[in-house]
Parts: sequence; structure tokens; C-alpha cells
Amino acid sequence: MLKNGVLDPQGEAVRHALGQLGFDGVEAVRQGKVIELDLAETDAEAARASVTEMCEKLLANTVIESYSVEIA
Amino acid sequence: MLKNGVLDPQGEAVRHALGQLGFDGVEAVRQGKVIELDLAETDAEAARASVTEMCEKLLANTVIESYSVEIA
Repeated sequence: MLKNGVLDPQGEAVRHALGQLGFDGVEAVRQGKVIELDLAETDAEAARASVTEMCEKLLANTVIESYSVEIA
Repeated sequence: MLKNGVLDPQGEAVRHALGQLGFDGVEAVRQGKVIELDLAETDAEAARASVTEMCEKLLANTVIESYSVEIA
């Protein structure tokens, strides 16, 4: 997700479009990405460490985006 | 998320880039969207019904995308 305070024009466009379609009561919309990875790693903690490194190096733009990692 | 069987070139590009960066053991990558809505509605079931309708009408392309709704 974009960090709080970073303008989200895509989310704002969605909010506007929902209003046009008659959906009232939508106060704010933020749009982000979800990336699903199938990993060979079977140890949950090792997987979490590896994915966190992937986020820092490639998947997230940490200047403007926050991220969270879930292991399923 | 894109439905299974629908080609995901963005996910494929991420998988390739992770390989280039030396992350081994990434078997598959799928990329999707997450949309966070702040609603005035306070009843969880009414909110769920309303968001499901938003997904069907605007937020998801149900021909190629699946979606799930979480109320927080």
C-alpha cells in the first residue's frame, strides 16, 4: 500500500467512480498491490526473512510504499 | 487476483526479476490488487453486501479476476 500522506490518484478515481454509480458512504479508497509467491522454502521463518528481503530489494518502493508479509 | 489459467505477465516478470537478483526457489508469482475502502456503514453484513456489489459492478473484472471481501 502507499504510505499515509502519499497521494493515491488511482484510489481517488475509484472513489469518484463509486460515487457516480450511486454508492454513498465511501469515505476513502486506497489501492495497493498484492503479490502471491509460491516458494520452495518450507521453513516459515526462513520464508518470511527471504520475502522481506525481496520486498526491500524489488517488490516494494519503500520510499512511498509500506508492505506486510503473510506466510500461508 | 487473476483467475487460475489466466496468463499473468506482470507476475511472470516479477518471478524473472527475482531470479536475476539471486532469489532461488520462487516457483510461481501472481500479482493482484488490494483496494481498501473506508465506509460510513457500521453494520458488517450490510457493508459486505455493499462491497460485493461494488466488486461486481466496478472493482473487479469478473471475466478474468476473482475477488474476496474482508471486513475489518
